[in-house]
Amino acid sequence: MQRIFGNTIRTFSSSPARWAKATPSKAHLAITPAHENLPRGFVVTGVHAGVKKKEGVLDLGLILSKEPKTSAAACFTRNAFQAAPVIVCQDVLQQTSGHANGLIVNSGCANAVTGKQGLKDAWDMVSATDNLLSKLVPANETPKGSHSSLVMSTGVIGQNLPISKIISAVKETSPESLDSTPEKWEALARAFMTTDTFPKLRAKTFKIGDTDVRIAGIDKGAGMIHPDMGPATPAPGTGSLHATLLGMIATDAAVSPQALQDALTYAVNRSFNSISVDGDMSTNDTVVVFANGASGMKEIDDVTSPEYTKFRDELTDFAAELAQLVVRDGEGATKFVTVNVRGALTYEDAHQVASKISTSALVKTALYGEDANWGRVLAATGSTNLSAPITPNTVSVSFIPTDGSEILPLLKNGEPEKVDEDRAKVILQREDLEIRVDLGMGNEQASYWTCDFSHEYVTINGDYRS
Amino acid sequence: MQRIFGNTIRTFSSSPARWAKATPSKAHLAITPAHENLPRGFVVTGVHAGVKKKEGVLDLGLILSKEPKTSAAACFTRNAFQAAPVIVCQDVLQQTSGHANGLIVNSGCANAVTGKQGLKDAWDMVSATDNLLSKLVPANETPKGSHSSLVMSTGVIGQNLPISKIISAVKETSPESLDSTPEKWEALARAFMTTDTFPKLRAKTFKIGDTDVRIAGIDKGAGMIHPDMGPATPAPGTGSLHATLLGMIATDAAVSPQALQDALTYAVNRSFNSISVDGDMSTNDTVVVFANGASGMKEIDDVTSPEYTKFRDELTDFAAELAQLVVRDGEGATKFVTVNVRGALTYEDAHQVASKISTSALVKTALYGEDANWGRVLAATGSTNLSAPITPNTVSVSFIPTDGSEILPLLKNGEPEKVDEDRAKVILQREDLEIRVDLGMGNEQASYWTCDFSHEYVTINGDYRS
Repeated sequence: MQRIFGNTIRTFSSSPARWAKATPSKAHLAITPAHENLPRGFVVTGVHAGVKKKEGVLDLGLILSKEPKTSAAACFTRNAFQAAPVIVCQDVLQQTSGHANGLIVNSGCANAVTGKQGLKDAWDMVSATDNLLSKLVPANETPKGSHSSLVMSTGVIGQNLPISKIISAVKETSPESLDSTPEKWEALARAFMTTDTFPKLRAKTFKIGDTDVRIAGIDKGAGMIHPDMGPATPAPGTGSLHATLLGMIATDAAVSPQALQDALTYAVNRSFNSISVDGDMSTNDTVVVFANGASGMKEIDDVTSPEYTKFRDELTDFAAELAQLVVRDGEGATKFVTVNVRGALTYEDAHQVASKISTSALVKTALYGEDANWGRVLAATGSTNLSAPITPNTVSVSFIPTDGSEILPLLKNGEPEKVDEDRAKVILQREDLEIRVDLGMGNEQASYWTCDFSHEYVTINGDYRS
Repeated sequence: MQRIFGNTIRTFSSSPARWAKATPSKAHLAITPAHENLPRGFVVTGVHAGVKKKEGVLDLGLILSKEPKTSAAACFTRNAFQAAPVIVCQDVLQQTSGHANGLIVNSGCANAVTGKQGLKDAWDMVSATDNLLSKLVPANETPKGSHSSLVMSTGVIGQNLPISKIISAVKETSPESLDSTPEKWEALARAFMTTDTFPKLRAKTFKIGDTDVRIAGIDKGAGMIHPDMGPATPAPGTGSLHATLLGMIATDAAVSPQALQDALTYAVNRSFNSISVDGDMSTNDTVVVFANGASGMKEIDDVTSPEYTKFRDELTDFAAELAQLVVRDGEGATKFVTVNVRGALTYEDAHQVASKISTSALVKTALYGEDANWGRVLAATGSTNLSAPITPNTVSVSFIPTDGSEILPLLKNGEPEKVDEDRAKVILQREDLEIRVDLGMGNEQASYWTCDFSHEYVTINGDYRS
């Protein structure tokens, strides 16, 4: 078997066609946002502070809101070993009742498992950003009469930040060097990257009532991904937990802090908590959203209003688009797979089954080998613990080509179908695929996005201290 | 990077030493049992029925007990899609109140997701074995006045058995062709094998009181392994579930059916349910134990007696030895890793943490890359849901070399240690390693055995319809 590192061409003696496929380049997924879609009232930048060794590589980002009354909300990893920035963000949001004007993010070091020094460093980053904010927004105009910034870090676990380099870089950043151009937003997106192969940035415009509202978002992640984030809780360590996904969304919609948190939690469950690359869990997962009202609309505060529903659904679709970029960039991935589970009794049941299939090493290696191995999909399905026992004779499994052509049924009400192997081969050779499981127990459904498990994943993760 | 399929020599440009390691041969783990350790009163054989295509390859095994009063017990997968043989075994044990004299096992086809035909085929295998039994043991001497056999299958899911070939092979097997020699036991062990690279067979003698008791056991498994078996339940589908591990233990101890089931359940939790190769779950997992009393000892019936405790602990140690063979044969594995979690509040907490670490793709790829990546061990630990929240500042992690040399501390009470990288490298280059996590919350502990995640695992599983 030949292998050329960096441009993986695989050949395999008994099935030459199967392995002879290069890992697809993801560069086409990096889209420069149109200026008219960038949210008003925010300014951003990305710089090289020196967290990452290589000269010129961006590793520090800032986003500041010029609107004094900016709502902020976040969802966090529930890993018992929450990284210092995660702990600090929860404190800031609590102290400010959901008002924050700034965010500082660094890549190259996760500031996780760094004890007291780590917490101090995270607070120092917050203070440095607050100082910068004070040059843009007078403190007495903010709801709490003070500034407040959030902080995120991503990178290697268990090492302290080179904090003096970070603080110096912030001090050297003049307010004028922050701006809201496509180039500045791309620099901010690059400052998030670690093993990502392209900056993940999107922006769009949508309407709430008659008002044009704009939203921009950045995320990062390519490995150690299986998020299960929730709103800040006083008792960390409950629930299941996941890794190294960061998301930052900024919009000029006007939304109260509580409504914003509700919308974000809903959106995160159906987006960032519905992706998997390798089923592992993080110390650092965080998704933050800012809503600064610069669009001029009336503030959304009532979660029963149609305006809230519209905002929540737009936020969910936008977050799903960002989250799927992470899957597309899955380490070593050659497939983008949607797992759709329907016919469940509850949304949680559907989500659990979709999650189990999406994290199955045997399903994911079969996808890599382009093998229509529904038996493994079934074993994963049957290994869940749902609100009621699964009834084997009501379960169906099919593969859905994403080009709209004919569905390939594999199992129907518990009985195997005779599989058209040629058709299966054609479907599986494409990059995109949907696996559909119908439990036949109810009416709820959930979608999950995942990728395959390849040789390259093993290579990348056998050699990266993270 | 060069790769020669079949004899994987990996070289990697930036770290040549790390990948330049062949998958170790496991042949030395196949040990022919000594005749004097084989349990009295059982006869066995292994034949080629034709389930597997290749001429001469053993794929059908039989074990019969000549003692009319033989106790039997079993633990099964809790996957909602229990294979036909699993369903039939539970029925047989229920109908006979834990008395069975025979077992028929085939490899090459799992008889899973095979509907009504699959059930019929499994019952036909039971009947054919009962007929053979009737030539060895008169029916009217058995506790229920009838014969009863158990059945197991392993191999590809979703295909029907070539049942006529199996039934013919049983009919053509004369009672005289079954025996209890080391060669016959090895043939039986080979009949279990699918992706196993060596037959997994062990036998030993121990004492209960003054009596010499003998025990022999066979298991199989090399991939799709993460068992969580329990005693037969009327409602399948509860609890979490695992895959393609079969175990068969035969002893001439005298144990009542209920005591035997209790001992087996205890032993399975601490052995077969404490191993992981790739974290996936099966439709077929089954472990069966027969106790026929041929040693002449007084029957154990009281689970508070010292004799019961001795038997249970011996059975547990024996089962653990068999279970670890499966890990050693893990598909593509180059490492054998013991994960020991201590300082937990409950055994279940310790077991859950050990399980999470043992199934982490990131921990397992790091082990393959010989990287002392304790951060990933910690992230896995913190992603569990225990009986109480984990306290980060009481958690310690260390690597323990299995040769008795100095322990390598990595994290102590939540604070990272300065790691001696040279020492770490030496420890990680060996095939055997122990990862120890102390939660600092209580006094309970659990051990789990697992292996690394390699390129070869991906190759094997990208290309096997199972």
